[in-house]
Amino acid sequence: MTAPTPDTAADSVGIVETQFLELPGPLALDCGRVLAQVRVAYETYGRLSPTRDNVILVCHALSGDAHAAGYTATPSEASTRDGFRAEERDAERGRGLGWWDGMVGPGKAFDTDQFFVVSSNLLGGCAGTTGPSSLNPSTGRPYGSDFPVITVADMVRAQRALLDELGITRLFAVAGGSLGGMQALQWAVQHADQVDAIISIASTHALQPQGVAWNAIARNAITADPDWQGGDYHGTGRAPTAGMGVARMVGHITYLSATSVRNKFGRRLQATDDIRYDLTTPEFEVESYLRHQADAFVRRFDANTYLYTSRALSYFDLARQHGSGQLARAVNDMSARTLLIAFSSDWLYPPEGSEELATALRTAGKDVEFHVIDAPYGHDCFLLEEARQTPLIRAFLER
Amino acid sequence: MTAPTPDTAADSVGIVETQFLELPGPLALDCGRVLAQVRVAYETYGRLSPTRDNVILVCHALSGDAHAAGYTATPSEASTRDGFRAEERDAERGRGLGWWDGMVGPGKAFDTDQFFVVSSNLLGGCAGTTGPSSLNPSTGRPYGSDFPVITVADMVRAQRALLDELGITRLFAVAGGSLGGMQALQWAVQHADQVDAIISIASTHALQPQGVAWNAIARNAITADPDWQGGDYHGTGRAPTAGMGVARMVGHITYLSATSVRNKFGRRLQATDDIRYDLTTPEFEVESYLRHQADAFVRRFDANTYLYTSRALSYFDLARQHGSGQLARAVNDMSARTLLIAFSSDWLYPPEGSEELATALRTAGKDVEFHVIDAPYGHDCFLLEEARQTPLIRAFLER
Repeated sequence: MTAPTPDTAADSVGIVETQFLELPGPLALDCGRVLAQVRVAYETYGRLSPTRDNVILVCHALSGDAHAAGYTATPSEASTRDGFRAEERDAERGRGLGWWDGMVGPGKAFDTDQFFVVSSNLLGGCAGTTGPSSLNPSTGRPYGSDFPVITVADMVRAQRALLDELGITRLFAVAGGSLGGMQALQWAVQHADQVDAIISIASTHALQPQGVAWNAIARNAITADPDWQGGDYHGTGRAPTAGMGVARMVGHITYLSATSVRNKFGRRLQATDDIRYDLTTPEFEVESYLRHQADAFVRRFDANTYLYTSRALSYFDLARQHGSGQLARAVNDMSARTLLIAFSSDWLYPPEGSEELATALRTAGKDVEFHVIDAPYGHDCFLLEEARQTPLIRAFLER
Repeated sequence: MTAPTPDTAADSVGIVETQFLELPGPLALDCGRVLAQVRVAYETYGRLSPTRDNVILVCHALSGDAHAAGYTATPSEASTRDGFRAEERDAERGRGLGWWDGMVGPGKAFDTDQFFVVSSNLLGGCAGTTGPSSLNPSTGRPYGSDFPVITVADMVRAQRALLDELGITRLFAVAGGSLGGMQALQWAVQHADQVDAIISIASTHALQPQGVAWNAIARNAITADPDWQGGDYHGTGRAPTAGMGVARMVGHITYLSATSVRNKFGRRLQATDDIRYDLTTPEFEVESYLRHQADAFVRRFDANTYLYTSRALSYFDLARQHGSGQLARAVNDMSARTLLIAFSSDWLYPPEGSEELATALRTAGKDVEFHVIDAPYGHDCFLLEEARQTPLIRAFLER
């Protein structure tokens, strides 16, 4: 057990434990199938007000989990954040820090002295919520390839059901980055009358085609691994770790900018002054870093969850799911105040995408704020540029 | 056999046949090893002048071959160009068109009415020149993992030896794009007194760190495939086609720009009006395209050649190999006139890299011309933007 160091105690929610809740009924999904039993892993920070009007739902991205803030009692890799700067900080503070601890806590962007923050592992996840590695009650074996294909709307359905169980009807705000930001947008169209504000960071109403391609490549890396076994690798003693490693490498480089890769690694060689004429051993620092990242991810993450979640975020498209195919009409259904934040160097979720959504909202007469933060760390900015997001978010929430 | 259509006959070198030459002696390599026997596949276009002063060597990129111009007598996938626009043109003209046919021929950028153009498959290749799939004379089996790690300098050594056999001492110019442009630069430092001009297009003196990462990821996809078998898959009846497919997908997307992916595919679905909730079947057109590209590439290309060539282009670094680590000092060894062309949307070999090299050459008092062509097709521009490169190249060669 790693105790918080004194310097972090004041602004930390402290040691938290993930809780688990079985939804009372089945969950009907976009694909037409029904999940008979759904468990949701979640954490809460701060105190629910007597009138239950101070709830902020925080939604995580592809590789995240319910542990957004504070420390786990038992340090685990599962809650180690992925960005390299975050990594360094984790090493300082000890392991088990939540993935958005810089944003959620006393006096932080999502101020737990004021708000009751709920964070849950998304549907299809591998960190406590029902997903493809969970037991299928009708067979007694893990779902594997029999897990239904899910959408961002399905993730929101599971969150809505969780909040019902917690006795929470309205949300003061829903917030998240990347896939988490998609969930926030989905809340605004799916439960327009139940959410007052959404904060969608480094996200989009529809992934850019290049992003669709990157996600397809990452999924191909996993499904091409014979150890994937059509998705039914559980209990076989083998798992598609090699393919997952490649998928993670692809993802990782798309989360960084060319500038941040150059600044962090340059063309520095690993441990030697000159090349070693070796085909497979990492020669450059960036090669070694990628391998390390892949190995760490493979140990903590389920390959099928990666596939299902990647599929869901590629599918997500506010305009298409509206039926009209028109973004301008899709946003008409939204009534929540909206804060969009993008980062200048994020080429996976580029500012132009957020600008398009902001324009559609503005044209429809909606209350929207859009900020582009000039920062060099690529898509990872949403996890790293906490100091510059905080005043924007606090001002937006206080309005 | 597909005959040239009438509209292409006038500016085509016509039907050409790849030739093969065994080098008379062994080839000593940068890594310290020696290849006892080396065969080189090559083609020539145009006529060698009586004084042998009109030779232009054309160097190909990672997935190319000796067949730069004209048609093969037997259409083959091996000589089908990769860019999607090129593909469409191939479909019109029939198969077997050289990879740089738009640039090499009568009246073209490399005018075969005036110049004698030589094009060879690079050392380590899989299209006729000795490479990891060639028979190792000391074992009688394919080299596989026993093939030595090669460098761009080694590729130039093989080209120099080929030209010796052809009775060619001096080169009027060396030209190429991407890895081919690296070979041109390498010629200028390795044989400064034998080459009068170099043309390096969409290339660099040292791959950007992000490019190093992409290449490492592609190689990892191959080596992670159990069918790679440590590189010794020849004769086993299995080859790392799945991993190669993923590697090719990664490469392919890095050769396009985000804009060109968006313009070509958008988020259009494949063959249906709505998503099908399927985890592995391509849903988006871009997913289907990537799979098609991967399948086609796997049929025509050797995985080990991909690995060795990718390693060589990642290693390439004019400053490091100079010993000083200083680009300013490395370029002092160059005496050829230099033409550098970059493309605004090429994020794999960005214009800033060429600018850095141009500045170093200019500062050293060298004769350098540098142009950035504003075009949206990413790195593939060097194969596609022929019309706009042609006047630059012709003017440079005529000076």
